[in-house]
Amino acid sequence: MNITEQMQSMGEKAKEAARALSAASPAAKADALVRLADLLLQKEAAITEANSKDLEEARKRGLDGPRMDRLTLTPAIIREMSDACRQVAAMPDPIGAIETQWQRPNGLLVGKMRIPLGVIAMIYESRPNVTVDSGILCLKAGNAVILRGGSEAINSNLALAALVHEALEAAGLPRDAVQVVPTTDREAINTLCKLEQYIDVIIPRGGETLIRKVVELATMPVLKHYEGVCHAYVDSGADLEEALTVVFNSKTHRPGVCNALEGLLVHKDEAQAFLPMVAEKLGGAGVDFRACPRSLPLLGSTATAMSESDPGTEYHALILLVKVVDSMKEAQDYIAAYGSNHTEVICTRDLDRAMRFVREVDASMVAVNASSRFNDGGQLGLGAEIGISTSKLHSYGVMGVKELTTTKFVVFGKGQIRV
Amino acid sequence: MNITEQMQSMGEKAKEAARALSAASPAAKADALVRLADLLLQKEAAITEANSKDLEEARKRGLDGPRMDRLTLTPAIIREMSDACRQVAAMPDPIGAIETQWQRPNGLLVGKMRIPLGVIAMIYESRPNVTVDSGILCLKAGNAVILRGGSEAINSNLALAALVHEALEAAGLPRDAVQVVPTTDREAINTLCKLEQYIDVIIPRGGETLIRKVVELATMPVLKHYEGVCHAYVDSGADLEEALTVVFNSKTHRPGVCNALEGLLVHKDEAQAFLPMVAEKLGGAGVDFRACPRSLPLLGSTATAMSESDPGTEYHALILLVKVVDSMKEAQDYIAAYGSNHTEVICTRDLDRAMRFVREVDASMVAVNASSRFNDGGQLGLGAEIGISTSKLHSYGVMGVKELTTTKFVVFGKGQIRV
Repeated sequence: MNITEQMQSMGEKAKEAARALSAASPAAKADALVRLADLLLQKEAAITEANSKDLEEARKRGLDGPRMDRLTLTPAIIREMSDACRQVAAMPDPIGAIETQWQRPNGLLVGKMRIPLGVIAMIYESRPNVTVDSGILCLKAGNAVILRGGSEAINSNLALAALVHEALEAAGLPRDAVQVVPTTDREAINTLCKLEQYIDVIIPRGGETLIRKVVELATMPVLKHYEGVCHAYVDSGADLEEALTVVFNSKTHRPGVCNALEGLLVHKDEAQAFLPMVAEKLGGAGVDFRACPRSLPLLGSTATAMSESDPGTEYHALILLVKVVDSMKEAQDYIAAYGSNHTEVICTRDLDRAMRFVREVDASMVAVNASSRFNDGGQLGLGAEIGISTSKLHSYGVMGVKELTTTKFVVFGKGQIRV
Repeated sequence: MNITEQMQSMGEKAKEAARALSAASPAAKADALVRLADLLLQKEAAITEANSKDLEEARKRGLDGPRMDRLTLTPAIIREMSDACRQVAAMPDPIGAIETQWQRPNGLLVGKMRIPLGVIAMIYESRPNVTVDSGILCLKAGNAVILRGGSEAINSNLALAALVHEALEAAGLPRDAVQVVPTTDREAINTLCKLEQYIDVIIPRGGETLIRKVVELATMPVLKHYEGVCHAYVDSGADLEEALTVVFNSKTHRPGVCNALEGLLVHKDEAQAFLPMVAEKLGGAGVDFRACPRSLPLLGSTATAMSESDPGTEYHALILLVKVVDSMKEAQDYIAAYGSNHTEVICTRDLDRAMRFVREVDASMVAVNASSRFNDGGQLGLGAEIGISTSKLHSYGVMGVKELTTTKFVVFGKGQIRV
């Protein structure tokens, strides 16, 4: 079989598995998840052995430190995967519930029933634990999934897939509900993108180049998870101590992730008082500032003048753009121009402006007096997440189990006809 | 300006209008809709004149009867458009409501706020009333829309757009909230499909060729409205009189539309009794049958043996495929193989099988003992509709105002940070 035939065959099997899975009982799905939790702990040695092969190969090819880190499956990470399986098993099963129902004048009872999306293809980069996390979320939501992880993790991913298959079969569910693409050939991605007859949605997670490529090629819907260029606006009259805490946490808690802060917009009334506080606390923690002309003199020694390329940049590092604005309107215009619809924060005491900011700013999460780092499935209370969608269609923001489902109309009649 | 520049400029204007519209008051949107309702009646002469130009041109080019019909704006159709404006104005405004909210252990209040999608591009065929219907639904949902109707309706569409602009401006809303592509150049569609920086979603309505083309080209999400290959399954023990009424209405009420019945699947226990009833009532109304070997002898003179190409065909005519099945399972397998995820009906008295059919059959509407013709926004109680989506992402089935919106996460804190 060439790659095209191989992907087609996987698509076909996934579609068949999805049909069985959509009718599977909540108990069977939970059973598979608990069995997988156990297997991950029992078969730790086999997982580690497969992972060692990947690590050795990666070392030969000179993978850098952070990527080696992401590729490594430690006993702690294996335990986390196992815990995640148990947590997802314990969550309520979303499928089959009629969530809302109304009666029509002719007596028809019309409702919307929650159903799986069908077949999901996930394309992602090196972390092999994504294989388990994505697999179990898709399974809980009743979807079949085709997983295509980074080529450097191929042995780890196949070892994890073997355990998933064992758990599925022991629970009486089709093993093809979760399939890992067994080849590292890049042609596989191109082929998957064209299999709209089998795949209902494709989810690329990784660098912008990968996402753009999938968007260009895919003939099925794509759920994009782009970068986060997140801002905090400190309003006139804000509680500056509280704002400082929020800004500090947003920037420094984990600077390399998508919900970290990249830009700070400060109302001109507060600049004189607030920016020296920022300089001391964030500057003291090693943050470099890229400052507008008005903020530059207030930010101390780690500040340099911002260049044209700074606005809209995701630094992924301890760097913060700082800009003084004349009004909330100016902050909103700046966010509309340079934000990435990911996470935006306002620090304010003013009710009217808080509500206007929340209403008018276009981002997957808008927060009042809270850290940008809360834009996360666990933190928002959704349990596990598959990512954060920055496109508005289907699901905007954090995607948990429910966001991997859809609804259909169900109608109960007594012989009604249309007149 | 060449076509690409022209479309880019429309995209830019739409994006700006969308931002203003997302913050517009419900009162202003309703005001624009009521003003448009009035203008449509007041300016009937101008609309009819523009429509006459299109009709004359179409006559010269030899457009067929049904297409001439669809192109014609009669006073009755103009009145219907006006009524639709008033109905949509009276509907509750969906935007800005926080529909669900929960508190996290750390006191964060997390909610989901309903927001517009942004900019919608609609590509459709000849009916000029779609221009008004789509425009007002998008407006109500707070979206800017770019409308690209059939080239033969260009004068009608531009005349209607002029009234929409007058109504928008009188209500203090941006006129670019609703734009009609002013050229009939087909290149416009290709360009629109690539403007993902401005357009959030593209909705093609029309023939399969148009939809496939848009799916191939578009880099933004596409909401597809494919054909309907709809079936009714008459179960063992069904109320045959009631089933006959439902099947008759589903097939003959309006055979040319997407929710009309194309296939009848009858349990072998009922074939002897039911098929002669079908032959008499539907055959008597001019329905031709394409029959399986077991049903052929029971269907009378208008039946012929089905060919290989019959299953899965949307006849758009008084033709019905008829097949005897041994079990509900066989009916479900047939529907999974040949249905188009549009509308599927079961006629039964059995609770367990009714619930299993509803749960397991994958279609945008699944009905028990009711006509397939109810898969329609007005009939299901959604008010107006923009179409029936046969793709599962975002919205599956009838799309009304609410389906033209999405939600974002809104978080209210008191200085919470992530620990």
